Amino acid sequence: MEHWDNPEYKNWGAKWGAMMSWIMSQQYFRENLQLGTGGETGPVNDLLRGTTERIGANIMGKRMFEQGERAWPENAPFHTAVYVLTHEKREPWSRPGGTTFYFINDGPQHALEMARESVGDRDIRIAGGADVIQQYLNMGVIDELEIALAPVLFGEGRRLFENIFRPEPQFRIDKVLDGPAATHLRYVRQ
Amino acid sequence: MEHWDNPEYKNWGAKWGAMMSWIMSQQYFRENLQLGTGGETGPVNDLLRGTTERIGANIMGKRMFEQGERAWPENAPFHTAVYVLTHEKREPWSRPGGTTFYFINDGPQHALEMARESVGDRDIRIAGGADVIQQYLNMGVIDELEIALAPVLFGEGRRLFENIFRPEPQFRIDKVLDGPAATHLRYVRQ
Repeated sequence: MEHWDNPEYKNWGAKWGAMMSWIMSQQYFRENLQLGTGGETGPVNDLLRGTTERIGANIMGKRMFEQGERAWPENAPFHTAVYVLTHEKREPWSRPGGTTFYFINDGPQHALEMARESVGDRDIRIAGGADVIQQYLNMGVIDELEIALAPVLFGEGRRLFENIFRPEPQFRIDKVLDGPAATHLRYVRQ
Repeated sequence: MEHWDNPEYKNWGAKWGAMMSWIMSQQYFRENLQLGTGGETGPVNDLLRGTTERIGANIMGKRMFEQGERAWPENAPFHTAVYVLTHEKREPWSRPGGTTFYFINDGPQHALEMARESVGDRDIRIAGGADVIQQYLNMGVIDELEIALAPVLFGEGRRLFENIFRPEPQFRIDKVLDGPAATHLRYVRQ
């Protein structure tokens, strides 16, 4: 975060771009982040749109929120309640376009309960980062994983599948989409 | 290794089976390991056969060799020279079917030189494990990566892409094959 304004630091800007290039070219993402018109409208775009449109609440970690607070447009790209796991005490923060961030200080179980109460018949997305996803994997409440795998080594990397204490194989491959810049893996619970 | 004879230890036998099931069902693999006739003959089998048949020498680590020494049939499944990186001093060991294991005590660069001398116009495969692959990735000599990615958490896991000190993105996606038990990623150097 301290090198946010210097994308040449360890070449992070170019690597971030390579890692994210698959999504920057999708029509739905461009529309949602107000990046401009046009973009790809194939199966990856359909997956992105289909998943996003059935989400009624998001849960994320403090680091992801803090990065996004700088990077997202004023019209934040969630359009749902977003529960941020943090030690910071802060009043709910409403953005134009229907996104309200709630700052949850008492752990992932409580965030999940609040999300469930607010979500109606829509789904809850654990947006990230890796440590937050791991906490919910260990709670056994994850039904689906959608992973965009890009062949980019970004620093030391953050590992998605570590600190997992559940012993059984939990997921099977549901769908794979093959793009030029990323491979899209959809796993569902067995 | 000390639980080799007890596949119920931490359920390792079932997990190993789930992780390896994609290859156990391939016709070429079954034929090569003398596991029986039949098996799948689709694009994954073609990839496996095509890669294996252009290999003129293999390089592997000590742990992979020691596991294989127990598990491979007498007619070991390489049919080439195999250079084993180890501190053990041992005479070359020839197996029926054209596999000879050479035990290399002076590091990966020397193993690569020996492989290059023996290989003619065929290719060299770095068979594994992860730490050996990392050493050759850091030497910048890897042209292709073929990864079979199965959604199985096997213990703590061994990480393929860590301890990599080369700063640039090195690989692009060349091909993805979508199987029911594994996703096959073929990356080539940019």
